[in-house]
Amino acid sequence: MEQLKEKIRSEGIVLSDKVLKVDAFLNHQIDPQLMQQIGREFARRYQGQGITKIVTIEASGIAPAVMAGLELGVPVIFARKHQSLTLTDHLLTASVYSFTKQVESTIAISTNHLSPSDRVLIIDDFLANGKAAKGLITIIEQAGASIVGLGIVIEKSFQAGRQELEALGLRVESLARVQALQDGQVHFVD
Amino acid sequence: MEQLKEKIRSEGIVLSDKVLKVDAFLNHQIDPQLMQQIGREFARRYQGQGITKIVTIEASGIAPAVMAGLELGVPVIFARKHQSLTLTDHLLTASVYSFTKQVESTIAISTNHLSPSDRVLIIDDFLANGKAAKGLITIIEQAGASIVGLGIVIEKSFQAGRQELEALGLRVESLARVQALQDGQVHFVD
Repeated sequence: MEQLKEKIRSEGIVLSDKVLKVDAFLNHQIDPQLMQQIGREFARRYQGQGITKIVTIEASGIAPAVMAGLELGVPVIFARKHQSLTLTDHLLTASVYSFTKQVESTIAISTNHLSPSDRVLIIDDFLANGKAAKGLITIIEQAGASIVGLGIVIEKSFQAGRQELEALGLRVESLARVQALQDGQVHFVD
Repeated sequence: MEQLKEKIRSEGIVLSDKVLKVDAFLNHQIDPQLMQQIGREFARRYQGQGITKIVTIEASGIAPAVMAGLELGVPVIFARKHQSLTLTDHLLTASVYSFTKQVESTIAISTNHLSPSDRVLIIDDFLANGKAAKGLITIIEQAGASIVGLGIVIEKSFQAGRQELEALGLRVESLARVQALQDGQVHFVD
């Protein structure tokens, strides 16, 4: 997605050879128009696949997921990382290690919102080693729902996430694929 | 906003005389179409006010804030509750106590994204005692930006939040105002 790559080139900051900061439009400040375009692109790639639910993870996955849900006409569920008094239902959980936050956390989705008849599109802001995605997959499988595929805003193609997800037979659609972060520059695949 | 009230009546769950659970469409599962309508209503109420930024707080404020940002054509910033490796900028912070999570947490916004020329609309999912809103106000004032008003999805009018914000001279627009939670029923103002 060329508009996204342009935004990454102009506003992304390479913090190290592994860390790309996109706080200007995705992870802290959000560009709603860009999110709408991202949602449309995910919907275009997954149209006709009978998707009934989108699942993402708080907080940075929510904006692109909601825009995709708007285009596909389906509800969005965001997995919670932090317990709330109102989340009193029976929970499906998985343990996820976050590299950028350097903590292990438990993510949870209420059983009320996923059923075996659901066909799920997983959306997230980043795919690196695939830990967050695998946590979501564990939860969706516990619910007995089907996974149609994943929609990723920015993929770090130099890490193993895509390879591991494809090895599970899953479709991975990433809107920007980063081949390398070198000398302060972002290099994309192709 | 009648469509929102209908949704609260049909899918909200009264957990106690203070706690209303709206996990089916706002706080855990999100209804993107409803969020779009909510965003349009906030935009309608604040049009012509010269708003340049929307500020909200992760995670449940993000969906309505992004939809309002899309309608108003302005960026959205979400205050973070949890430290991230990529949030390395100078931070503006405030301390906020969450009743539903029963924890004190520090919320933060990078100085990169707010300036004295900004005219800010604060959006959040709930207004109860106003603790989260006041945390955001503290941060926005530290940045020297102006606050045009607040846009709240669900106001618990039986708690002191609105009163305290109005006492600060702030405009508060709430799309659903809950007068009481009694006998498992939601009673709205007017």
